[in-house]
Amino acid sequence: MSFKPISDIGEFGLIERIAPIAAPTLEAVPGLTEGIGDDCAVYELSPSTVQVATTDLLFEHIHFDLLTTPLQHLGSKAISVNVSDICAMNARPRYALVSIALPPKASVELVETVYRGMSETAQRYRTALAGGDTSASPGGIVISVTATGEAEKEKITLRKGARSGDLVCVTGSLGEAAAGLRVLMREKDIMLEHIRHGETYDRDIMSNLGEYNEAIRQQLLPSARMDIIDFFHKHSIVPTSMIDISDGLAPDLGHICKRSGVGAYIEESRLPISSQVRHVADEFQEDAVNYALSGGEDYQLLFTLKKEQFSAIASHPDITVIGKITPEDEGMLLCDIYGMTVDLNTIGGFDHFGGK
Amino acid sequence: MSFKPISDIGEFGLIERIAPIAAPTLEAVPGLTEGIGDDCAVYELSPSTVQVATTDLLFEHIHFDLLTTPLQHLGSKAISVNVSDICAMNARPRYALVSIALPPKASVELVETVYRGMSETAQRYRTALAGGDTSASPGGIVISVTATGEAEKEKITLRKGARSGDLVCVTGSLGEAAAGLRVLMREKDIMLEHIRHGETYDRDIMSNLGEYNEAIRQQLLPSARMDIIDFFHKHSIVPTSMIDISDGLAPDLGHICKRSGVGAYIEESRLPISSQVRHVADEFQEDAVNYALSGGEDYQLLFTLKKEQFSAIASHPDITVIGKITPEDEGMLLCDIYGMTVDLNTIGGFDHFGGK
Repeated sequence: MSFKPISDIGEFGLIERIAPIAAPTLEAVPGLTEGIGDDCAVYELSPSTVQVATTDLLFEHIHFDLLTTPLQHLGSKAISVNVSDICAMNARPRYALVSIALPPKASVELVETVYRGMSETAQRYRTALAGGDTSASPGGIVISVTATGEAEKEKITLRKGARSGDLVCVTGSLGEAAAGLRVLMREKDIMLEHIRHGETYDRDIMSNLGEYNEAIRQQLLPSARMDIIDFFHKHSIVPTSMIDISDGLAPDLGHICKRSGVGAYIEESRLPISSQVRHVADEFQEDAVNYALSGGEDYQLLFTLKKEQFSAIASHPDITVIGKITPEDEGMLLCDIYGMTVDLNTIGGFDHFGGK
Repeated sequence: MSFKPISDIGEFGLIERIAPIAAPTLEAVPGLTEGIGDDCAVYELSPSTVQVATTDLLFEHIHFDLLTTPLQHLGSKAISVNVSDICAMNARPRYALVSIALPPKASVELVETVYRGMSETAQRYRTALAGGDTSASPGGIVISVTATGEAEKEKITLRKGARSGDLVCVTGSLGEAAAGLRVLMREKDIMLEHIRHGETYDRDIMSNLGEYNEAIRQQLLPSARMDIIDFFHKHSIVPTSMIDISDGLAPDLGHICKRSGVGAYIEESRLPISSQVRHVADEFQEDAVNYALSGGEDYQLLFTLKKEQFSAIASHPDITVIGKITPEDEGMLLCDIYGMTVDLNTIGGFDHFGGK
């Protein structure tokens, strides 16, 4: 009997294998209306209110690098990425549980600094740090955060509601986190080179790379777009589908298209890419559009909207219409600045297991 | 500046340092009535219903050993230990989120087997597996489970309600999991010895150690005591305090006493210890009472009850009164079979960070 390594099927392939095994458990809990497959699970608290819940597991050496990540930022980001999943359901966060595992020789002060970052950020989102677990780790630091949120039932926005003709919109600018990561990795190499030669290196330089500050901030200290959820609620906007951009625009749009049974047509010229991101990409002789499409970790919101609601978002300075939803058989296409179309399905995002 | 390693203050010391950092986050969420410090966080869903939530992080090489743990049992135990925390609040489970991290070379079949164990056990508890996260792990397998449950508000049982004069009760028999672990570790040594000498070893032997079957089952495949919660609800019993025994009777009773501001007086002769546990302890020339007091992982319920409710539990074959709650200044004492008293505070349980 031969066994298939997970790297053969990748993270999404693995989830497709797990979901049917978990499916029979949903029958006993009728209020659980969405299980595996969206940003959050959805659980009905009452006929008018639902709870959403999400969880994320972060490993040192895989998801973060303590050489380039201040501990307080690490704590902050662990909270923000989960609150971002809550926002992607058009919901507001309520409380979070935090587990942390550390080598027994790690210092108490290290843990306190990580928690201070979590606490300050949780306060900003009005989210309670309600409990958790601590454990020894055989390797580096591991952080697991589970966050819950709430929304009125009719406001919940899933990945699966997009319809042909809807507008495709994103918040903020794309590729920032990928550009920030490039700069930090280069700076890390410089630092290691200094250390190797017995020279001193001022670590404050790294958090002070002024000309790249926005990209680095988006990489180390991303914010969940609660402000957009507030804007939606204030103007009674309910997107037809929504996801937060954690893997990259192309794979995350792919999740919406697959779950909604639709295609999409995106115009490259409309992608919100900052001059700083273009500048970094130029320095590394790379393409800023690729940062936007597959860089990941932007934690911006990608959503679809009925065309008639365009006027409701038109004046928002931080929302950009980048294309439209099409019938499923038209595929998921990018029209580049020369008018050529590219199949967005061929552009992958980050896969933890190296799957394709 | 010198830093204090976590092993100096231990797991409980660390939690005491984290709690005040998280405290300001609770202010923004008035429904969150219990944060860090009990088996679960408590969140009010309505004036009459509360949600409880708990999370556990399990590491290969620290919490489980794949040489002695069948994968399906591992999945089952990951669910049971969280549902046990829900039961310890006198609540019933509703849904769980599961994160799993694996080396990229791990097989898909391995993950499926772990999930089958989770799914079958979740179905038994009528708990939905509602979502989660998958990630690559730089080391062994890591599993994080978060479970939520619900109860009527007036039935919720915290650690902090015990009063002087209350009866101290436990379910099931104690020290089973510790005895099972001893036997499994010995069998593992035998297996490794066989392998070292190039001899074959039939791994089925390990799951078929008939004479120790109950202790091994409690170690590998513990059950949350949902049946006790059903019994409580059926007979309108509300304990004054409750905890599940995960660290060991002595430290877990310590949590109740500390949170409630009381002492306790336990009679050794009343401790429910099976003949199998006594037999294993004899074989290892150890004391079965120590297995019961500090073995941990029994996942039985330890609770306190007003004296007047004794008749309600008296006829239950699996509940034992082991002592009584006393004023705080009388301390936490064990009266041994010779009538000598021992300070239970001097008996530690398992501490992940090796703290004292």
